[in-house]
Amino acid sequence: MSTGKPIIVLVKPQLGQNIGKAARAMLNFGLTEMRIVDPRDGWPNPSAGPTAAGADQVLEEAQVFKTTAEAVADCSHIYATTVRKRGMTKDVLTPSQAAEDMASASGKCAILFGPERSGLEVVDVELARKIITVPINPEFGSLNLAQAVILVAYELSKMDHSGTVQPTIEKKKREPAPQIELDRFFEHLERALEGSGYFYPPDRAAATKVTLRNMVTKPAWTNEEVQTWRGIISALEKPYMKK
Amino acid sequence: MSTGKPIIVLVKPQLGQNIGKAARAMLNFGLTEMRIVDPRDGWPNPSAGPTAAGADQVLEEAQVFKTTAEAVADCSHIYATTVRKRGMTKDVLTPSQAAEDMASASGKCAILFGPERSGLEVVDVELARKIITVPINPEFGSLNLAQAVILVAYELSKMDHSGTVQPTIEKKKREPAPQIELDRFFEHLERALEGSGYFYPPDRAAATKVTLRNMVTKPAWTNEEVQTWRGIISALEKPYMKK
Repeated sequence: MSTGKPIIVLVKPQLGQNIGKAARAMLNFGLTEMRIVDPRDGWPNPSAGPTAAGADQVLEEAQVFKTTAEAVADCSHIYATTVRKRGMTKDVLTPSQAAEDMASASGKCAILFGPERSGLEVVDVELARKIITVPINPEFGSLNLAQAVILVAYELSKMDHSGTVQPTIEKKKREPAPQIELDRFFEHLERALEGSGYFYPPDRAAATKVTLRNMVTKPAWTNEEVQTWRGIISALEKPYMKK
Repeated sequence: MSTGKPIIVLVKPQLGQNIGKAARAMLNFGLTEMRIVDPRDGWPNPSAGPTAAGADQVLEEAQVFKTTAEAVADCSHIYATTVRKRGMTKDVLTPSQAAEDMASASGKCAILFGPERSGLEVVDVELARKIITVPINPEFGSLNLAQAVILVAYELSKMDHSGTVQPTIEKKKREPAPQIELDRFFEHLERALEGSGYFYPPDRAAATKVTLRNMVTKPAWTNEEVQTWRGIISALEKPYMKK
């Protein structure tokens, strides 16, 4: 099944568990097309299933190839992930730059990930047009396979708003209360505090009210929240209500 | 050891292996301060070491707390990671937006991650000012703990390299009050309201307190502002103070 989305190519992966984890990481961000080059323990590998944690479809549809060249034969844009500098003249992109690059690419894109211990060999990197390097702590550069896959998949999903749920801040967030509600809130607070003798000494009252008003306008409360605060003040002011 | 970088707080983690993997993910992107709340299998946990893959320092320096509130008592900005919609009025940020948010924050930042199976409980989310949600495949939302940690740590590390921080702005900005001050504020408010009979009917009290706590944690008040609010409550509660 081709989705038009980039293809994740695991080159000579060692552990089935890691293949499963990579499948899970892919599906987390809507990638479904996995290709596997010369897996050490053969394919299918029973230890991949459990770690895929439900991403079985990715494993079931994974295609296996003898060589990297065959695996990417139908791809127009090949990216190699590597942490090591190899003195190559290819462009080195961050995952985020690579995702942008792929978003504007026409033709199939493939991203190569090397074996767990050693990473991609020079011959595999040679196939690639560009290099993807995750900017990582130089003193602790051990990034496991599934983690490398998830970072790349995550960046790709940012470019593609169709497949993932973007937290819809605008839609979900309730609007801050209009100013008039804050004014009413403030008048209410002021009245209650006057009853309680809060504004003392009197010549400080004006400055104190400015402070309070700043505090009240700061939080961007919703209408409901303003009403809740008013309920609080009403409950507390009861003894001061005269007449 | 405090680095000034955000603190990763694992709330009730279940498996030692996952704590180790989270440590590795943190160190990959230069985060070193881990706090652990009520780990299921106690601490230290011998199964954390191997999966940390060399990030032993993070585990050795991890601090353990009984409750989430204690773990974040000294923090000014608390973020809760969650995938579930809870109909809250808190801001929901992507990891990238959260990283930007933290880069411009003054005071300690803490990021809460829930237990593997269930995620954060409502009481933990209440402590947070903002929510972090990874925009994920809606049909396959199972993101494991270490993967959630690495995505957030990765986005944070991007801010480190961006060099766009404006240090002059930060100096002028007052820090939001640490969580412990908000806790005290809230206890004060609750006590005063109990005296006034606000919590009625009694079986709604728990839900109402959740609403109030969310409202209190929302605004990022400074220490001075929290004290001003407490002065307000003190003034209004006087008639209810017995003995």
